[in-house]
Amino acid sequence: MIITLKKEAPQKEVDKLHQYFTDKGLNVNMIQGENYNVFGLVGDTSHLSERDILANEWVENVQRVAAPYKLANRMFHPEDTIVDVGGIKVGAGQKVVIIGGPCSVEGEEQICRIAQEVKECGADMLRGGAYKPRTSPYSFQGLGYEGILDMVEARKQTKMPIVSELMSADKIDEFEENVDLVQIGARNMQNFDLLKACGHISKPILLKRGMSATIEDWIMSAEYIMASGNPNVIFCERGIRTFETYTRNTLDLAVVPIIKEKTHLPIIIDPSHATGDYKLVEAVSLAAIAAGADGLIVEVHDHPASAWSDGAQSLKPDRFQQLIEKARLVAKAVGREL
Amino acid sequence: MIITLKKEAPQKEVDKLHQYFTDKGLNVNMIQGENYNVFGLVGDTSHLSERDILANEWVENVQRVAAPYKLANRMFHPEDTIVDVGGIKVGAGQKVVIIGGPCSVEGEEQICRIAQEVKECGADMLRGGAYKPRTSPYSFQGLGYEGILDMVEARKQTKMPIVSELMSADKIDEFEENVDLVQIGARNMQNFDLLKACGHISKPILLKRGMSATIEDWIMSAEYIMASGNPNVIFCERGIRTFETYTRNTLDLAVVPIIKEKTHLPIIIDPSHATGDYKLVEAVSLAAIAAGADGLIVEVHDHPASAWSDGAQSLKPDRFQQLIEKARLVAKAVGREL
Amino acid sequence: MIITLKKEAPQKEVDKLHQYFTDKGLNVNMIQGENYNVFGLVGDTSHLSERDILANEWVENVQRVAAPYKLANRMFHPEDTIVDVGGIKVGAGQKVVIIGGPCSVEGEEQICRIAQEVKECGADMLRGGAYKPRTSPYSFQGLGYEGILDMVEARKQTKMPIVSELMSADKIDEFEENVDLVQIGARNMQNFDLLKACGHISKPILLKRGMSATIEDWIMSAEYIMASGNPNVIFCERGIRTFETYTRNTLDLAVVPIIKEKTHLPIIIDPSHATGDYKLVEAVSLAAIAAGADGLIVEVHDHPASAWSDGAQSLKPDRFQQLIEKARLVAKAVGREL
Amino acid sequence: MIITLKKEAPQKEVDKLHQYFTDKGLNVNMIQGENYNVFGLVGDTSHLSERDILANEWVENVQRVAAPYKLANRMFHPEDTIVDVGGIKVGAGQKVVIIGGPCSVEGEEQICRIAQEVKECGADMLRGGAYKPRTSPYSFQGLGYEGILDMVEARKQTKMPIVSELMSADKIDEFEENVDLVQIGARNMQNFDLLKACGHISKPILLKRGMSATIEDWIMSAEYIMASGNPNVIFCERGIRTFETYTRNTLDLAVVPIIKEKTHLPIIIDPSHATGDYKLVEAVSLAAIAAGADGLIVEVHDHPASAWSDGAQSLKPDRFQQLIEKARLVAKAVGREL
Repeated sequence: MIITLKKEAPQKEVDKLHQYFTDKGLNVNMIQGENYNVFGLVGDTSHLSERDILANEWVENVQRVAAPYKLANRMFHPEDTIVDVGGIKVGAGQKVVIIGGPCSVEGEEQICRIAQEVKECGADMLRGGAYKPRTSPYSFQGLGYEGILDMVEARKQTKMPIVSELMSADKIDEFEENVDLVQIGARNMQNFDLLKACGHISKPILLKRGMSATIEDWIMSAEYIMASGNPNVIFCERGIRTFETYTRNTLDLAVVPIIKEKTHLPIIIDPSHATGDYKLVEAVSLAAIAAGADGLIVEVHDHPASAWSDGAQSLKPDRFQQLIEKARLVAKAVGREL
Repeated sequence: MIITLKKEAPQKEVDKLHQYFTDKGLNVNMIQGENYNVFGLVGDTSHLSERDILANEWVENVQRVAAPYKLANRMFHPEDTIVDVGGIKVGAGQKVVIIGGPCSVEGEEQICRIAQEVKECGADMLRGGAYKPRTSPYSFQGLGYEGILDMVEARKQTKMPIVSELMSADKIDEFEENVDLVQIGARNMQNFDLLKACGHISKPILLKRGMSATIEDWIMSAEYIMASGNPNVIFCERGIRTFETYTRNTLDLAVVPIIKEKTHLPIIIDPSHATGDYKLVEAVSLAAIAAGADGLIVEVHDHPASAWSDGAQSLKPDRFQQLIEKARLVAKAVGREL
Repeated sequence: MIITLKKEAPQKEVDKLHQYFTDKGLNVNMIQGENYNVFGLVGDTSHLSERDILANEWVENVQRVAAPYKLANRMFHPEDTIVDVGGIKVGAGQKVVIIGGPCSVEGEEQICRIAQEVKECGADMLRGGAYKPRTSPYSFQGLGYEGILDMVEARKQTKMPIVSELMSADKIDEFEENVDLVQIGARNMQNFDLLKACGHISKPILLKRGMSATIEDWIMSAEYIMASGNPNVIFCERGIRTFETYTRNTLDLAVVPIIKEKTHLPIIIDPSHATGDYKLVEAVSLAAIAAGADGLIVEVHDHPASAWSDGAQSLKPDRFQQLIEKARLVAKAVGREL
Repeated sequence: MIITLKKEAPQKEVDKLHQYFTDKGLNVNMIQGENYNVFGLVGDTSHLSERDILANEWVENVQRVAAPYKLANRMFHPEDTIVDVGGIKVGAGQKVVIIGGPCSVEGEEQICRIAQEVKECGADMLRGGAYKPRTSPYSFQGLGYEGILDMVEARKQTKMPIVSELMSADKIDEFEENVDLVQIGARNMQNFDLLKACGHISKPILLKRGMSATIEDWIMSAEYIMASGNPNVIFCERGIRTFETYTRNTLDLAVVPIIKEKTHLPIIIDPSHATGDYKLVEAVSLAAIAAGADGLIVEVHDHPASAWSDGAQSLKPDRFQQLIEKARLVAKAVGREL
């Protein structure tokens, strides 16, 4: 960690700060500049917070050299982590996984029917929301536990692992018991109590990126889950909020190689939320695979116009199948299977 | 609601959509344009979701005319709402309230001492975090219930109402019992289960704006709380996330007149998180009051350099006092008391 | 165009506005809502500005139905435009073009050497900056006309068309005479005098997206060039500015299918400025081609560490060659040649 | 400047880099960390570009300690600069200046009439656009030189200095001869050729912040003007582009104290472009003055609904007068005159 001190800092204050870091077991190197002096700290600085040090009025600036995350950091865990989701392996050059299904579970018949369809199209896992984070309190809020049970039935019929979003820590047992991959949504990416709860279960976690989360914020949220005991985290990029409103969000595909450089965990892409428009889903899905993503999570509905939520970004099964066929060719072109 | 249809939409599909809206009790007016046709819907469209309608492949665009919120909407509730916080009235031209205190409660002695100091400076209420949302799992996470009890003691000694952040619905009873103003932090602004829980309690809610929340998103989160039964919501702007990184966030002061135009609820400003830098707090605080804000919530610490969190943005008591004195003059200049 | 009027608007004002639009040759349809009245305008509204209409105090909101651009609009020009750059055809499913070369021309020997190298790697055109937009006045500002002449020599030796950035209208003749594809940089995307000047020349224009330009702003800038007489515009996405600072910009690949839907013009991608980091260039380049881009413009330098500008995002020739080989496979997978 | 090197960097490469900086007259200090090594450079680093150093593959990160600007830097010019605009002094605690007038000059009669009105309301200077940067080529583009002459006539009649926007370097003589304060608009903030041209004239420059310009980018643009010979620059904040679209831009008032800390130059605020909505102009204007701004530039029109541009954000004279009266009280409250 590099700490820039104001030149006019009294020697007494500089000494005090020096002592403070030494007491924390850090080695302090000092560089005298023309307009500033600089402390270089050597040692484990992961418990230091840049902002706390900035509170010292003689400090001008603080710059972290080493990343603040450890368990997720590739530097300390060079080999890729493969996450097992109900028998399907994700990451590390394994087969690119395709997760398909409706935004919301609308009943047993619907989810089982769509599950069958997405399976026939070539999907590996089934997605479906039972607890729905909706901007309006007047919108459909999901079927709740009944929806989870419908998903379980769909798994029984299709043998596909199931993915669903957890919104509240008090449902953690329900999810651990029933769901194969527990999704944390963008709006809860920094719901730290929920992240800690996810650290205590045996099921892998699909961690969506928050709408305004930096890459470092996002990795730190994975670190929360891992530090609480669960090493099985899959990142999911779903677009960030920018000034551009033509698309629902702006998909940031550079995160694929970045996450792979900085961490050892898998990353998949959600082209549906990233664009908000079914017409754009195919193009960005192929792009995601070309960029090296380990999978896709795609909203599919057989009657988007009457879907209970997010129909605008849902593919019909025939378009989904076509996407998978094209995706297979792109995967092959970049040396992956799908 | 205005729905733009593609010109090539088959008559059958147009009729079906027309019927669909009629069945929902809406009046449909159609305008034939050159390249598009347009439906104008008259009636209560608050349960319709723009995105659901967009799912129809013949729909090009959907534009809401009436706001999607009702309980928070000034149109249906023209007079200002005054929120009572432990006997202190907030909003509607009442005295501008000043909330001061440390980012984190660090113990009974600390919080009682700072409470006394901020009171002497002229504060009306005391803030202090017992449950802390921290980006890193390795940072101090707050004293928890013990910190709440320390706040209660500080209230007893100073008679000031207390404000603290609730992070999880399972602590709702603890907060209802002990805290006078329950804060929902920026990271939980769309934690809808938490918002619903807040709707069931008798204490007022301080709803911070999410880092990437539009004004409409934010009002819809207030609508969640109100629709669940609690009409006492105070908005708190604390800066949004933009490309500018010199400040921690970008304070958006235009929201003050906008919230007052669109809703009937009070709004206060958090200059500490908005800037992240104690040197900037005074200037933006005065600006907030000049813009018409109903109050300020300011981080104050007597030893910022050793604060357990957010020292960089905390004022020392003498600067806080000076801020209040200047703020009083500005309040007076815009016809308010403080 | 849809205009929402306040319900309390006096009849006289409504009539006046009605007359105003009728006088402009537009057909006005009125829908009476509960809380608002709505005007639907039918006819050519492209000279109306939404913001001008908003100036009427009885108007609540204005929503454009038809796009404000005409010449660039696919609706009025359904077939793809193919732009010819010195004999190389760009767009409409033609071969994906690869433009390579250094950020800055550093001298005749350097540009001719790199030109030869990028040609051998498989590039179709040569890029090189002679006039450089630099954030600091103390940075190298480009070789100017001498650099253009060096580019001309490199074209002579390699037979590749040359691409260079024009920063000022007073150099337009120099560029028309010497350069095959005239680049307008991100910082000048709304330098309207420069756009108009580009409309008067016979060479095609490469129009980079501004750092904070919406897709509509960007198309309107193309419309400026086209309305001034030059129909040969190629769009170039190079990333937008967002809160994420890990990458230099955030590449927005959804624009590829959007530009192809809304306009009939080609679009290429600049992976170098989009990421700012040579390690990320390959992944996003492959993604761009998978998304359907008509080409790439890539910074290549044989000694990035001593490049006079932008070495951090420049590929060495061997990595560039590897990129082209992989890109060829991805292009083939999506049915294109390269 | 602090340079972080990868631990695995070969000694030969480290030595080469060390030599490179030493050759540039810099003093190099090295700190050996656990996972990284760090160079601290002491000396004048303003001609080094962070991005050029990043091009070295063994460099992980580069952090500037000293600001890259010199002439604008308060560190080397501690006293406030006062800019004289046609006899009116701006900055350094002088009277807060009010600039009022229409977005566009629409003719001699109009500009002289409005000039008279704004003067009677209490304005110090007159604004009016003769060359207009419009998003659409089909919108009114300004009266050009005729508009400048109309402004000159208005100055003659009212004795107020005049402010107008320069869009192209080829009009620089026209502006130097006729205009008192030459405005560079947001879209041209990084039109470096235009900035250099502004450096060669004797008139002060009003430098608007670009829509996506960081504070450092903005100061560097002032540095361009100053380094080219013109020390008289006034900053003008007019809002930045963010995800929030309710307002036209997001006004960033924290820049007022920041610009005053980092530079010695004056700063004024444009509340009209910042909000895009005349109803919001008063609140943010008062806020700007409370934050310490040295002036306001406000769009005023006597018939906004028929203004040729930007009527939606223009105040009528009576509202403008009311704004000035309230602003006077706020200015007094913060110890300034107006």
